[in-house]
Amino acid sequence: MGGNRELAERFISRLEARDWGAWARLLHPDVIYEIPQSRERIRGRERYLQFNREYPGDWHLRPKVIIADDQRGVVWFEWSVDGSGPDDAMAFFEFADGLITRVTDFWPEPFEPPAGREHLVERWLPARVH
Amino acid sequence: MGGNRELAERFISRLEARDWGAWARLLHPDVIYEIPQSRERIRGRERYLQFNREYPGDWHLRPKVIIADDQRGVVWFEWSVDGSGPDDAMAFFEFADGLITRVTDFWPEPFEPPAGREHLVERWLPARVH
Repeated sequence: MGGNRELAERFISRLEARDWGAWARLLHPDVIYEIPQSRERIRGRERYLQFNREYPGDWHLRPKVIIADDQRGVVWFEWSVDGSGPDDAMAFFEFADGLITRVTDFWPEPFEPPAGREHLVERWLPARVH
Repeated sequence: MGGNRELAERFISRLEARDWGAWARLLHPDVIYEIPQSRERIRGRERYLQFNREYPGDWHLRPKVIIADDQRGVVWFEWSVDGSGPDDAMAFFEFADGLITRVTDFWPEPFEPPAGREHLVERWLPARVH
């Protein structure tokens, strides 16, 4: 389980470092990557590596929370690109035999609160003005 | 840790059941609830309970993945309201002394894929036509 937590942590840190070789070695050759919000799926380590290498912009990732058990894990991280953000995102993992076999990530966007709950909530200021 | 996993599971199941008494008993009296996307915060069990009791619509929750360790946990769940959805959401937890002390949730929305990665991805159909 410590091993899986470390796999999740290294997944983010090796991406941030653009250390593509070390990043790819965390992945099963048949890894499945999914983005449910856009209903996109990438099959296999080589395509997933290419996807990240080709991803546009000067993006940065910073882990905030990592949780893992013997089969699954999650990293909640902050990301920014080309000076926008930071926003929160999260990547869920499945593990087998010391490798990552599935990655599913989510990219929530800021929204304004609906009316009608002002009597219960307080708000905080944006982390940075865009 | 099994206890924390069960706390996370019951958090969702007692909400879905509108079993407000059992749901509130999972929470520390000074629980903090945050929605980073709208920068909203609710302080305390009583207000958080009121927030959920007043939340409009016929909403439903179904857990998909639960991960917990001795301090933190997450539930990735499907939600729908008034026949729209299902969409994915996730709630992160902090635990102390067998209670939930902090809840942070995220509500990602569907988006269309940006152009330029069609050579790497496949897409799947929506779960339901809205």
